[in-house]
Amino acid sequence: MALAEVTGSLLTDALAEIASDVDADFDALLPQTGDARARLVEAMRYAAIGGGKRIRPLLLTATARLYGVDRDAAVRAGVAVESIHVYSLIHDDLPCMDDDALRHGKPTVHLTFDEATAVLAGDALHALAFEILADAAVSADPFVRVELLRTLGEASGLRGMAGGQMMDLVAETSSFDLPTITRLQQLKTGALLAASVEMGAILGHVPPEGRTHLRGYARDVGLAFQIADDLIDREGDASVAGKAVGKDEAAGKQTFLTLLGPDRAREQARMLVDQAIAHLADYGSEADLLRAIARYIVERDH
Amino acid sequence: MALAEVTGSLLTDALAEIASDVDADFDALLPQTGDARARLVEAMRYAAIGGGKRIRPLLLTATARLYGVDRDAAVRAGVAVESIHVYSLIHDDLPCMDDDALRHGKPTVHLTFDEATAVLAGDALHALAFEILADAAVSADPFVRVELLRTLGEASGLRGMAGGQMMDLVAETSSFDLPTITRLQQLKTGALLAASVEMGAILGHVPPEGRTHLRGYARDVGLAFQIADDLIDREGDASVAGKAVGKDEAAGKQTFLTLLGPDRAREQARMLVDQAIAHLADYGSEADLLRAIARYIVERDH
Repeated sequence: MALAEVTGSLLTDALAEIASDVDADFDALLPQTGDARARLVEAMRYAAIGGGKRIRPLLLTATARLYGVDRDAAVRAGVAVESIHVYSLIHDDLPCMDDDALRHGKPTVHLTFDEATAVLAGDALHALAFEILADAAVSADPFVRVELLRTLGEASGLRGMAGGQMMDLVAETSSFDLPTITRLQQLKTGALLAASVEMGAILGHVPPEGRTHLRGYARDVGLAFQIADDLIDREGDASVAGKAVGKDEAAGKQTFLTLLGPDRAREQARMLVDQAIAHLADYGSEADLLRAIARYIVERDH
Repeated sequence: MALAEVTGSLLTDALAEIASDVDADFDALLPQTGDARARLVEAMRYAAIGGGKRIRPLLLTATARLYGVDRDAAVRAGVAVESIHVYSLIHDDLPCMDDDALRHGKPTVHLTFDEATAVLAGDALHALAFEILADAAVSADPFVRVELLRTLGEASGLRGMAGGQMMDLVAETSSFDLPTITRLQQLKTGALLAASVEMGAILGHVPPEGRTHLRGYARDVGLAFQIADDLIDREGDASVAGKAVGKDEAAGKQTFLTLLGPDRAREQARMLVDQAIAHLADYGSEADLLRAIARYIVERDH
């Protein structure tokens, strides 16, 4: 078998495995309540189970594996990150935000349920992320749990994802230059992807000074991911993407693509992937999955 | 001076002090960013600074004081709870939720800014709560921080506030009995009030088995608080309450008041306050502030 095929199968297996593990964890964490909260639990389960590529838990578990971390613990921490990601999609899809009708090939939460339930389901998944990380199932060491919580909190809020989403709203009516768009994307998408890698290293007890290469990898992967997303929005097929496409252009939104054009954007994404992989030079074959994830991120079509 | 006057001044001073300390902390935690996130920071500051009675931080610091906890640390933990409370008000006031125009005597966040900014400001304040508690400024002991995070996470999500809000939505179209209304209120309002007391005890290194009386106090105070809120909604003055009143009746919502009637509800609230104070029998004058808070909770007009 050629190396590309081995890597391909490594990635395919890892994607299937993480999807199944994340679904199982959400299923266990969100049992029905049998009371008037039932609709909320249904909405949370509808959004959290059975959709998405689970890139963030995959990055977290692939990083944790470098350091021999127990897989169940790493998956659980990955589910916390995914819980934040899912809540942000629910709120992003609201009529007052992006007003989207389709997510992961299904009608969005506010259409399947209603807007109020969608707001609450997002809020409850947000809280769930922190409940998960405060629990001993993630790590017996309270310092590790606090570090995970600190990392995820910072990546989610004003100094991370929520801050980037605000910049994204402003981008619809303002003219941003490339450094500002880069900053926007680092906050909006990059922060949570970087936190996933960082949290894998925290579970592996890697001290901050030992995370430099992993942080470089995560930063480059994050930007490549966003450029790939922009390309999918411009050139993708809604039935494959599982969500509406062509929205950035319709909204007149500044993206990497509008600033660089498709050819240079594609080239930039490939360069970022090479750079991401170069950051892993000190690691052997145990980092092959992280390398495969980097390549997958620009080659995916959804 | 009569005892009532001493207690009154103790409470008045404590209310003024906590209001000023919470404002100062939010001011320090939310500096302007000088970039496209400025509008988000403004909305967060608009909602978080200069409004509300700060009952939750007051309960937390008053409990922490029983055990000689450093005041700055207790205030900081109280600001985390208040951050959750403020985010929940912003989301609650949204057009798709309660559609309120007035909060703490000011136009609500979505009217002053816009709906998308209001959703994001709530989300970012939600994340801020967890960032605060993961930081060493709250406690040098990571186990204490994890316990605070676990307690607040559980009180905020499906098994706490968000779950109660879902039941509250259902209450508008369903007929609930008294035990169900009690459960609803314990989740919607009680969970965060109880968490405030619990977190004060956690900061004081009180083991769970030593918190029984405090938990009893918190549970009774939480229910009394909600009955008082129902009475303010029915009989209060919007200009004093700083928010719209008469909304429950207009929405046909089941509350303690609709089930008990005003006289029995008022009597029940007073009984709960007596019961709350009885839980503090083992404490001396150091618990006078907690006793005064319990009385204030049913006597307030906003």
